[in-house]
Amino acid sequence: MKFSDLVQRLGIEIVNTSLAKHPDVDPDLLNIAAIDQSQPGTLSFIDGNRFSHWIHTTQADGLILPCDPQLQSVATARDIAWIATAQPRFLFAQALSHFYRPWRLAPTIDPTAVIHPTASLGTAVSIGAHSVIHERSQIGEGACIHANCVLYPEVDIGDRSVLHANCVIHERSQIGADCVIHSGAVIGAEGFGFVPTDQGWYKMPQSGMTVLEENVEVGCNTTIDRPAVGETRIGRGTKIDNLVQVAHGCQIGPNCVLVGQVGLAGHVELGPGVVLGGQVGVADYLKIGKGAIATARAGITKNIAAGTMISGFPAMPTKLWLKMMAALRKLPLSKSKV
Amino acid sequence: MKFSDLVQRLGIEIVNTSLAKHPDVDPDLLNIAAIDQSQPGTLSFIDGNRFSHWIHTTQADGLILPCDPQLQSVATARDIAWIATAQPRFLFAQALSHFYRPWRLAPTIDPTAVIHPTASLGTAVSIGAHSVIHERSQIGEGACIHANCVLYPEVDIGDRSVLHANCVIHERSQIGADCVIHSGAVIGAEGFGFVPTDQGWYKMPQSGMTVLEENVEVGCNTTIDRPAVGETRIGRGTKIDNLVQVAHGCQIGPNCVLVGQVGLAGHVELGPGVVLGGQVGVADYLKIGKGAIATARAGITKNIAAGTMISGFPAMPTKLWLKMMAALRKLPLSKSKV
Amino acid sequence: MKFSDLVQRLGIEIVNTSLAKHPDVDPDLLNIAAIDQSQPGTLSFIDGNRFSHWIHTTQADGLILPCDPQLQSVATARDIAWIATAQPRFLFAQALSHFYRPWRLAPTIDPTAVIHPTASLGTAVSIGAHSVIHERSQIGEGACIHANCVLYPEVDIGDRSVLHANCVIHERSQIGADCVIHSGAVIGAEGFGFVPTDQGWYKMPQSGMTVLEENVEVGCNTTIDRPAVGETRIGRGTKIDNLVQVAHGCQIGPNCVLVGQVGLAGHVELGPGVVLGGQVGVADYLKIGKGAIATARAGITKNIAAGTMISGFPAMPTKLWLKMMAALRKLPLSKSKV
Repeated sequence: MKFSDLVQRLGIEIVNTSLAKHPDVDPDLLNIAAIDQSQPGTLSFIDGNRFSHWIHTTQADGLILPCDPQLQSVATARDIAWIATAQPRFLFAQALSHFYRPWRLAPTIDPTAVIHPTASLGTAVSIGAHSVIHERSQIGEGACIHANCVLYPEVDIGDRSVLHANCVIHERSQIGADCVIHSGAVIGAEGFGFVPTDQGWYKMPQSGMTVLEENVEVGCNTTIDRPAVGETRIGRGTKIDNLVQVAHGCQIGPNCVLVGQVGLAGHVELGPGVVLGGQVGVADYLKIGKGAIATARAGITKNIAAGTMISGFPAMPTKLWLKMMAALRKLPLSKSKV
Repeated sequence: MKFSDLVQRLGIEIVNTSLAKHPDVDPDLLNIAAIDQSQPGTLSFIDGNRFSHWIHTTQADGLILPCDPQLQSVATARDIAWIATAQPRFLFAQALSHFYRPWRLAPTIDPTAVIHPTASLGTAVSIGAHSVIHERSQIGEGACIHANCVLYPEVDIGDRSVLHANCVIHERSQIGADCVIHSGAVIGAEGFGFVPTDQGWYKMPQSGMTVLEENVEVGCNTTIDRPAVGETRIGRGTKIDNLVQVAHGCQIGPNCVLVGQVGLAGHVELGPGVVLGGQVGVADYLKIGKGAIATARAGITKNIAAGTMISGFPAMPTKLWLKMMAALRKLPLSKSKV
Repeated sequence: MKFSDLVQRLGIEIVNTSLAKHPDVDPDLLNIAAIDQSQPGTLSFIDGNRFSHWIHTTQADGLILPCDPQLQSVATARDIAWIATAQPRFLFAQALSHFYRPWRLAPTIDPTAVIHPTASLGTAVSIGAHSVIHERSQIGEGACIHANCVLYPEVDIGDRSVLHANCVIHERSQIGADCVIHSGAVIGAEGFGFVPTDQGWYKMPQSGMTVLEENVEVGCNTTIDRPAVGETRIGRGTKIDNLVQVAHGCQIGPNCVLVGQVGLAGHVELGPGVVLGGQVGVADYLKIGKGAIATARAGITKNIAAGTMISGFPAMPTKLWLKMMAALRKLPLSKSKV
């Protein structure tokens, strides 16, 4: 693809481009690469300071740059074609989809799939080999169920949603449209509910259900349980990484992000746009307000107000935690003075 | 179901009921719900202070209450039928099983299952589609193996145990009667044993086995390894949540609880009734005494005496940890005074 | 097996043996056991102080001992045949392989496997029941794919590598020779990349690939993602335990060890021989130098120099952390004096 073709396709997000003054510098772009691995014929991008020094040495023939005249002039001087935008990473993501399309199953039903006669399949669905779809489940139009998935009864999969290989979706779960469930994830299994008795732990039946609204993504081997009564609900646009545990009855707002190995205990509520860094844990029944951010490993033991940034365990405002950690590092020294 | 019918079925645990004085308040119960989501026609419960204020506004027509005259009189005044018991959550769990029965496979063997001729199946077993049972494995009477499970050779599954979809049970594992293994769990895989040598890590063969005694529950995508020699053993009645790691050679007592994302290193011993909160970690070869409780995220680096409650990392008595954390939060302040 | 036969087979690593002076003490060894579980007829070993007191009471008929004359003389006095070596655990691992061979699938292709006609299979491969191999994948000579695995297109599995049941290997992944992928692991799935926009999280396409070099071992239900561009790479001889998360773009050196539940954020680089204890977390883009060791639960927030031992969160030199923790425990006391 010519650089100028790409510019035309991406048009709307572009603030400026080298083509304006140097239309003759219009390389063929064969591939796309990270800035530190770029080769001749590749398109790459620079976003933020971490990688800006690469402007002097990159082999890329095309670059997506921030609105930074200095980077732009170096690129021009090095005969690199460039596009400038307020959000280079976003434009790179869009450009990438012109070079790469993820593989998907053809819209057919593999003859080895076992599909209950009461299940209903929309048009143009793909059902991979050895998948099992139990009674009264419904698969929306254009949905893709990869190999070896199991859908328990009365599962509802929304239009165009993709289930990667070896997922299990338990009874009564509802997966909205345009969701992606990655390999090995388990949705809607029985919550971990036991009542202590003199004869040991008595199992609380788990009659509830799990709902994923539209455009939710769930990572590999992540588990999202259903509750004893009521719902576990994941709001639209929420993205969940690998190996995350969402316990029974959680209510997760729209557009949240849960990074790898996060653990939510039962009945946690996350407001819209909450971001939980890797390995964060949240105790049961807590509420975390809109837009709050917990940095990696925070252990949350109290309700968190909207817009707060928190860290540490027990989690506290990030600024306080940083001061506390600084004071703590001096502690062995100060004690030895005494 | 009439409220009075339910009372009759649950009889033994009931201390008092509104029917004694108001037998005419005997609603039809259609469903069961959490107190904060209850509707007309539902049964709900109140247990502890967190939810007791709902007594004034709940729409439920029936309630399970603690032995608290005040809650009972408000319920009576609001024409809500109620039962009082010392353990409302326990009674609610029992009531729930009169409204809800979990789906299970019919007791048949799916024709797509691959079962080695030397495997032996008890009466009334269910084997789901595409499950694979290797040589000399034994499936007890009434056991249910859901779709896409794999049993390596010489596995023993006890009577009435349930394996949910996509579980893997490795060679020589013994699963007792009345166990539940949730979707994606892996039992009895090779322990993580490597010996450092000049040529890299040399693999220790893992010739041991994993034993689950009766009435054990193992969560989704949880992993329980076997050791190089000897056994990994999970005591009867122990309940393990999702995404828990139990390394080779652990000896877990009866009636323990391991909440989500707990990790046990090799050869850990838990006494009877030990409770480990979410994301707790335990270092190898440690012993934790009967009835000890580790709160969520504790990182246990020493043996723990029976009956102790511990927290933090390195784990210490919870009271000490709370004081320490309080002192720590004041540290930045006290230092800035100096 | 006679003790003397075993000595002959293990010969090269042996420094000394009781046979030199007492060739008549040459028991039949029927089995192998941990020192605290040894019975008559078993071979066992002692390595380090934790177990040396067992020398006085063990029932074992044969022992692998360190080069410690005292232990050796007690063994001799008790008529136990022994071998002494600089690395008892290493010799025990080698001895174990004379008593135990792991089960493996016969080198046949199960008729229920679904293999795309464009896939290529080396000689003597084993393909288990219900495994699915998509287009253009290649399986090396003698490789073993257990039941219910799924290989997406263009996957390359090296000679003699073993994939245990229910693994998923995503498109373009390359698994080197002599690797072991344990049950439920997911290799090469889409990295967790989303760009914040006014309309929510925009998905970064994940066009990269995941490479495992030779002799890598990956634990049960572990997840190793592929990046947007470029590679995630696991160096030869690296061993990864269960439930570990390796995010997109990580570069892991040869012979590293990642213990259970470790989490690496995106683009982390580990030098050769790095060891990360259980539940360690590493923030994105960090570099950890050759031979560095992070003790269990360390939370790494900065680059780490080669050869360093670190602990705690934020991770710091282990010695400093130990001092800090000691000072911290005294804090409640010292404050109450003020």
